[in-house]
Amino acid sequence: MNPNPEQFMNTRKRTEAVALPTAADYLIASRQCELKNLQYFLQMGKLVQSISNLVHGLQRERGASNVFLGSAGQKFASERASMASDVDRRVSEFRQALSEVHGELTDYPASSHLLNRIASALHDLEGLEGLRDRIELQSIPAEAATQRFSQLIHHLITVVFEAADTVVDPSIAGLLVAMVHLMNGKEYCGQERAAGSAGFSCGRFDDALSQRMMHLVEAQERCFEVFVSFADEDSRLLWQSLRAHPREVEIERLRQRAWSVGRYKTMDPELADRWFALMTERIDDLKMVEDSVEGCFHACCVERFAEARESLDHQETLLASLDREDRTSQPVLVLCDSGREAGAPAGDAWASDGVSQQFGRSIFDLVQEQTRRLQQMNDELQSAKEALDDRKTQEKAVLLLMESRGLDNDQAHRVLRKLAMDQGRKLPEVARALVSMADVLK
Amino acid sequence: MNPNPEQFMNTRKRTEAVALPTAADYLIASRQCELKNLQYFLQMGKLVQSISNLVHGLQRERGASNVFLGSAGQKFASERASMASDVDRRVSEFRQALSEVHGELTDYPASSHLLNRIASALHDLEGLEGLRDRIELQSIPAEAATQRFSQLIHHLITVVFEAADTVVDPSIAGLLVAMVHLMNGKEYCGQERAAGSAGFSCGRFDDALSQRMMHLVEAQERCFEVFVSFADEDSRLLWQSLRAHPREVEIERLRQRAWSVGRYKTMDPELADRWFALMTERIDDLKMVEDSVEGCFHACCVERFAEARESLDHQETLLASLDREDRTSQPVLVLCDSGREAGAPAGDAWASDGVSQQFGRSIFDLVQEQTRRLQQMNDELQSAKEALDDRKTQEKAVLLLMESRGLDNDQAHRVLRKLAMDQGRKLPEVARALVSMADVLK
Repeated sequence: MNPNPEQFMNTRKRTEAVALPTAADYLIASRQCELKNLQYFLQMGKLVQSISNLVHGLQRERGASNVFLGSAGQKFASERASMASDVDRRVSEFRQALSEVHGELTDYPASSHLLNRIASALHDLEGLEGLRDRIELQSIPAEAATQRFSQLIHHLITVVFEAADTVVDPSIAGLLVAMVHLMNGKEYCGQERAAGSAGFSCGRFDDALSQRMMHLVEAQERCFEVFVSFADEDSRLLWQSLRAHPREVEIERLRQRAWSVGRYKTMDPELADRWFALMTERIDDLKMVEDSVEGCFHACCVERFAEARESLDHQETLLASLDREDRTSQPVLVLCDSGREAGAPAGDAWASDGVSQQFGRSIFDLVQEQTRRLQQMNDELQSAKEALDDRKTQEKAVLLLMESRGLDNDQAHRVLRKLAMDQGRKLPEVARALVSMADVLK
Repeated sequence: MNPNPEQFMNTRKRTEAVALPTAADYLIASRQCELKNLQYFLQMGKLVQSISNLVHGLQRERGASNVFLGSAGQKFASERASMASDVDRRVSEFRQALSEVHGELTDYPASSHLLNRIASALHDLEGLEGLRDRIELQSIPAEAATQRFSQLIHHLITVVFEAADTVVDPSIAGLLVAMVHLMNGKEYCGQERAAGSAGFSCGRFDDALSQRMMHLVEAQERCFEVFVSFADEDSRLLWQSLRAHPREVEIERLRQRAWSVGRYKTMDPELADRWFALMTERIDDLKMVEDSVEGCFHACCVERFAEARESLDHQETLLASLDREDRTSQPVLVLCDSGREAGAPAGDAWASDGVSQQFGRSIFDLVQEQTRRLQQMNDELQSAKEALDDRKTQEKAVLLLMESRGLDNDQAHRVLRKLAMDQGRKLPEVARALVSMADVLK
């Protein structure tokens, strides 16, 4: 709250004792703002990586806990303990990354959403020890324990989602959109592993369970589609090789059996172990794709930062030379014409004006160039923002259906998909139409 | 770039020596962020007011300069000088307001657009003295001088537009949207005064001039429509009484004469003085409406700030009491269930869990409440953001038509309006369709 123009003025190393900020100062400040934003996302990248790691650990612990509870404590007791201590390490790393980005986070007046999401995630983490105690004592049903882990993971992914929503640079935004959809898809995959394990262990799938599995497969596919359209080349290739892996065929076969077996027929419970192993491999491979996106995100931040830094230096040099001109040839008329900004057609009414026109044009050109650049970045940002908005709208539509029709999450997703299919429209479109009718539906 | 969790921790006055930030800390930080944003807009309000004042002064100086140049220096020589010194005073106030909001502006990583707009405006202001010298020497045509003033005014209004684009609070955003559209409408009114003066002074209106006047009237009306839908009750009433003023009928009559007189018939040049006086009164009254919106904006910021402050204090008290509970009854299990966030239907699987459930629920409820509140604010913000986006899209469509079809600004507006009329669609809709076809058109 302490405006300090002095500090700001230092950026141009002006020799005057007290000078009012000029157009050039604000042009530099505009560039510095971009730099600051990129620096913020360099830090943010570490947080995203720590979340990716933590989520992966939690998915493993969730899987092991599920098997542990499902086998009445017979299986995975020691695995579970080692996974838990692995998660604890990752929690520390997450907290560490959080503390490193702390200053930026709380200085940013628009980050109330993000901070609140972090509060949710931390709140869940604070309950993790308690949850583990109950799993250890087998005093919580497998399904409930799974759900608790899933909620924590959901809250962690939402932090990345909100972070993606604050990006200004389009290339960075696209990679974060790829990342958050990959994380979401991987999480649906983790939930599918749990649902499948439950079904295969007891040897049958009732309607609700097989529908849930279908929902999770479809939800995964949609996430991966968005991921593919925003990911970098390397990560996309890694993703394609994952898809081409023979394991995928076997998983597909098991899925088909799960969907078709019904509630009365029974299957060899040994399939449960095979399913769990296959899906675990798949999830581990998805984590490698995440690491690839994360690596690319970091490289992109570093590169964009270096570019922005260089371009700022260049402008400062340019402006300093203009400044010298300015001092040697005072008084100076700074005259120029935007060509079209004034709401009237640009004439060449003052083309005859020669006084320091070159000088005027130079500063003016720099400002115009920055305007165009920012405009173009905004335009390029659109598709990333739309992908995030689509996701938000779908979540809103699902909530709306749950509230107004008393459906559960899976059913609401199904209704939404059916609406889209019946009307031959895209899912986000149907979701938007639904949300726009919220008042009628409630 | 210096993360300082210690400083952050102070907000909760915890007694522990070193403690990791908790969910509660981040909940508080989320609220503090909102407060910071409101504080920013309290400062921003002063800047907006200084811009409103400066624009009004410039509109007056533009009018006087126009008459001065049109009368070959016979009229308004002294008025012009006093208006210029009035503008100089307002420029100082603008710079003062700028320096007061400086810290906030440059700390905000997303304000590169805003800072760049300020650079544009300052650049124009730096050329103001030069422009005046040329007007004094009558070495610049009236039309060119008018356009220079218009460009400066346009850049100043764009600063308000960009500021409106960074608001998070919906009530504040709505008022800024009202303000920026009122300012725009008033500016079109100022340009209409200039165009009309030119026509009435020489006693005739050629096609281009009367079409320009029609364009300016229509553009005004569209701005005022948006203003009315976002303005507060008081300002809206003030606006209605302006519209009901007998002067409006007389202006309408003069407009009709201007449109119908054509290039061959001539009119009494005395009408020019009458026109100028009427439009000046109108512009002055519009300034009063602006002041009313500005007053309401300020009151709204103060009120929302006090509310947010109170609600933060309340939460801190609440959390401190939970904290005490926490310390007296350790170890505590914090268990809770979001009900629906985990992507699976909420069961009551751990409804039987009694350990400190009340405590868990309390922090959890606070976080959930904040999530809902932020979500609701976002939803309410939509209509204000849409009004700004519509405006941006229209400007983009106009630029596109100018570039691809070689039209001037007025013609491009006309084409856009005709498209909308012919297709029976709304202007923003047609503009969006045009922009989406940019690649084909270029």
